[in-house]
Amino acid sequence: MAIEDKFGKVATSEDAHEVSETGAFVRQDNYFITPFGSGEGELPVEAGRYRLIWTPLCPWATRQIIALKLLGLEDVISVGTVSPVRTENGWEFSLDEGNVDPVLKIRYLPEIYAATDPDYEGRATVPTVVDLKTRKVVNNDYHHLTNYWETVWKPFHKQNAPDLYPEHLRKEIDELNVILFHEINNGVYKAGFAKSQAEYEKAYDVLFQRLDWLEERLSKSRYLFGDQITDSDIRLYVTLARFDTAYYFAFKTNRNRLSEFENLWNYAKDLYSIPAFKEATDFNSIKKGYLLGNHAHNPYGILPLGPDVSIWDEPHNRKEKFKAK
Amino acid sequence: MAIEDKFGKVATSEDAHEVSETGAFVRQDNYFITPFGSGEGELPVEAGRYRLIWTPLCPWATRQIIALKLLGLEDVISVGTVSPVRTENGWEFSLDEGNVDPVLKIRYLPEIYAATDPDYEGRATVPTVVDLKTRKVVNNDYHHLTNYWETVWKPFHKQNAPDLYPEHLRKEIDELNVILFHEINNGVYKAGFAKSQAEYEKAYDVLFQRLDWLEERLSKSRYLFGDQITDSDIRLYVTLARFDTAYYFAFKTNRNRLSEFENLWNYAKDLYSIPAFKEATDFNSIKKGYLLGNHAHNPYGILPLGPDVSIWDEPHNRKEKFKAK
Repeated sequence: MAIEDKFGKVATSEDAHEVSETGAFVRQDNYFITPFGSGEGELPVEAGRYRLIWTPLCPWATRQIIALKLLGLEDVISVGTVSPVRTENGWEFSLDEGNVDPVLKIRYLPEIYAATDPDYEGRATVPTVVDLKTRKVVNNDYHHLTNYWETVWKPFHKQNAPDLYPEHLRKEIDELNVILFHEINNGVYKAGFAKSQAEYEKAYDVLFQRLDWLEERLSKSRYLFGDQITDSDIRLYVTLARFDTAYYFAFKTNRNRLSEFENLWNYAKDLYSIPAFKEATDFNSIKKGYLLGNHAHNPYGILPLGPDVSIWDEPHNRKEKFKAK
Repeated sequence: MAIEDKFGKVATSEDAHEVSETGAFVRQDNYFITPFGSGEGELPVEAGRYRLIWTPLCPWATRQIIALKLLGLEDVISVGTVSPVRTENGWEFSLDEGNVDPVLKIRYLPEIYAATDPDYEGRATVPTVVDLKTRKVVNNDYHHLTNYWETVWKPFHKQNAPDLYPEHLRKEIDELNVILFHEINNGVYKAGFAKSQAEYEKAYDVLFQRLDWLEERLSKSRYLFGDQITDSDIRLYVTLARFDTAYYFAFKTNRNRLSEFENLWNYAKDLYSIPAFKEATDFNSIKKGYLLGNHAHNPYGILPLGPDVSIWDEPHNRKEKFKAK
């Protein structure tokens, strides 16, 4: 059962389960949600001031890396990487020398949460943005983080950076993003972390209905909003990139695989052919994270050899299909 | 570690694991191996005398049902069915009224093994053949059982029954069956029950190499031995029928799915279109058995809704491909 803490958030220990009375997965809310901006109490937009912690396993964190790469913010925001396999002590910097992040000088991500707020009882999550000036966690709000990179960080964008969040589309993008969150991005988790057959089936049905709807939508335009990539494409992509390698197995979302959808599969390969997407997509880490992590029920820690991910490099048909007439 | 009992067999309790020092799965040998026949000490071939216990989950048992149906022995051998989900007490007759087999009057299969030999320490397995005259287990030797139905039971075959084990092919069939056993039928279990990454990878490589070899072989003839179905086809089919629904998930045999092989997939659909094969193939029981059973590591007992098995009813291309020229 979910227990609300004094902040009205779902409080869980590192190993506790975010679960409703009917066995549904109820994801904890983000707690550090101060926006970036120039307003009173907002986080100042300054190059070199922040460190973003991610892991290639995590779809919520991978969104940020894709956005930073597309916009050319890689030298403006420093990036630390935790291992894709979450430990009992939380995300660990075990890929770094001495198992310690070279900038934050911590081994486990929860250390910086504890240093920021000793009363914080939620999970320490990726993405996490740390203010290097104060050494405090200042934002873990993946619902809005990409939008900050896309808007208030514009002064630092590279030349000719794409407009991922164009003003005239923001309302529509926001509306679609809410659907994507509940039914796709978190939808797979609802199927995979359900503790009752009924909640699993509910999540599965919603997920595949929405995928069918997206399949139809992507028969009409190259990207979700016409012929330009937007923030919504990043959000959809991170779930698609994990579908056949992880969710199909580990989360039982197996009506069919991504590669059996005509439009969604070609759309995913189209995005993957762009360096910012490809460089942020590490199928081996994705597999490890979902299949060896503490939710994996894989007692001997055996990592599946398949499926073959080389098919992601095969040609897509999107350019041809949506050639300007 | 495997422990040899006084019979030199691998002895395991119902829940113990048949596992080598390097983490490999080592299947117990069959213990009740007296052949059917008219020789001294052999099991007499008599209609109505034996009861065969099976479950549609089990590939070794399903072989028997397919053979009985193809040969028209269904009214000659009586059949009892245990639930596909093995319990802590072993295979259970929970599909029958009162959870009791109407003929043997037992609830759990191990009861008849204990009544037959109180010292028997192996698993009580399906298929099991019980002699209704003595109420004893007389044969659980799936390596040879289909061959008995095919040969010494010939006096009871239906008119025009196929010759599944033709004399001139027996040597070749036997040789192929040994390969099929080690690398395919039991090969998937070696991958799925491995307790070390090395043993899993070894089994996976052997399995897919052999499937590639079979894919090539089946590009040249409609069935494994030309244009007639033989015993070997039954043995290969039972593993193929479980591949995408169970092994691909539960046993991590996921280089690719059966339905991605051109020849193996059409071959499997060709066999499935024959009533004897189709009637013995219950995908829902297969799924339950592998994904809810005691090796499934599925703590909340959630049964995946997919994959879609209606594709088994789609047309195959084998008749066309091997039309007599």
